[in-house]
Amino acid sequence: MDHGLKETLLHSQPLVEGVLLKVYRDTVRLPDGRTAIREWIRHPGAAIAVPLFPDGSTILVRQFRYAVGKSFLEVPAGKLDHPEADPEETARRELAEETGYRAGKLTFLARFYPCIGYSNEVMYLYLAEELEPVVSHAEEDEFLEPVRLPWTEALDRIYRNEIEDMKSMLALLLVDRFLTIRNAP
Amino acid sequence: MDHGLKETLLHSQPLVEGVLLKVYRDTVRLPDGRTAIREWIRHPGAAIAVPLFPDGSTILVRQFRYAVGKSFLEVPAGKLDHPEADPEETARRELAEETGYRAGKLTFLARFYPCIGYSNEVMYLYLAEELEPVVSHAEEDEFLEPVRLPWTEALDRIYRNEIEDMKSMLALLLVDRFLTIRNAP
Repeated sequence: MDHGLKETLLHSQPLVEGVLLKVYRDTVRLPDGRTAIREWIRHPGAAIAVPLFPDGSTILVRQFRYAVGKSFLEVPAGKLDHPEADPEETARRELAEETGYRAGKLTFLARFYPCIGYSNEVMYLYLAEELEPVVSHAEEDEFLEPVRLPWTEALDRIYRNEIEDMKSMLALLLVDRFLTIRNAP
Repeated sequence: MDHGLKETLLHSQPLVEGVLLKVYRDTVRLPDGRTAIREWIRHPGAAIAVPLFPDGSTILVRQFRYAVGKSFLEVPAGKLDHPEADPEETARRELAEETGYRAGKLTFLARFYPCIGYSNEVMYLYLAEELEPVVSHAEEDEFLEPVRLPWTEALDRIYRNEIEDMKSMLALLLVDRFLTIRNAP
């Protein structure tokens, strides 16, 4: 399915073995035979859990994002421990850590790539229901403020562009469509 | 609006001055006084132009994305030349380069951040209308296949999760909502 567009690896050079980021500079062969440089980030992937309570509310988390230099209202999410880790288990863990709720039921909705220009990161989206409170264990270095709000308010914040985190915008819109279809008569 | 979550820079170390990627490792002070490491990518930003023809069709572009290792069907988009470049001008240029159409009318719809965990990249979304064919000038190293398709088919491909590029999924959904409201009686 690469439609004659595929680029093949000639040489790979690790640029950074960072605490958080692994960066590579690869030399590739283009479809027309020329060579080009591709620099990219190796990422283990991430999982998103959008909680939905019986009263129709959800929980978002406010978090300061250093790379951008401001705080964002986001859906609960977190990195996989390694590329082969179970996304569903990761979604369940991150939801508990960030919101203090355990999900009795997770529904997989979609897979998407946030940053295809320079990262292999993939995200798995789950709807989290049948929520029960647990003791929350926030990770080291994670400063989070959970914000419980009505579903329609979360959508309105997207449409007013007050929510600006791309994964959160897409996740809420995809969950909303799923709910619309599920609730249709 | 940082809600006591702000992290302040203590020391910044450039890790990579790459051909494409600029990577930094910063030491920051956390809200509780401890220090932490933040590695991040400096990016000039990007602009998206979703073309809409009077017959209700759009153009997506198929492109091989080396970082992920496969090709994606995407909305036309491209990087700003520098962080102060005009996003609207960038959207116009990328649309012409990637689809061969010039937009007589661009409507700004939203701003969002694709990768807040490790990049300062911001994306500006425009709806592109009043389209006129121009001679296409594909950039060096860009191998693109434009695909013209009905609007509803583009949406269906999102809902079937055949489109997996996050910016393209969100862009098409936000344009669709804008059109629904604009076309409402």
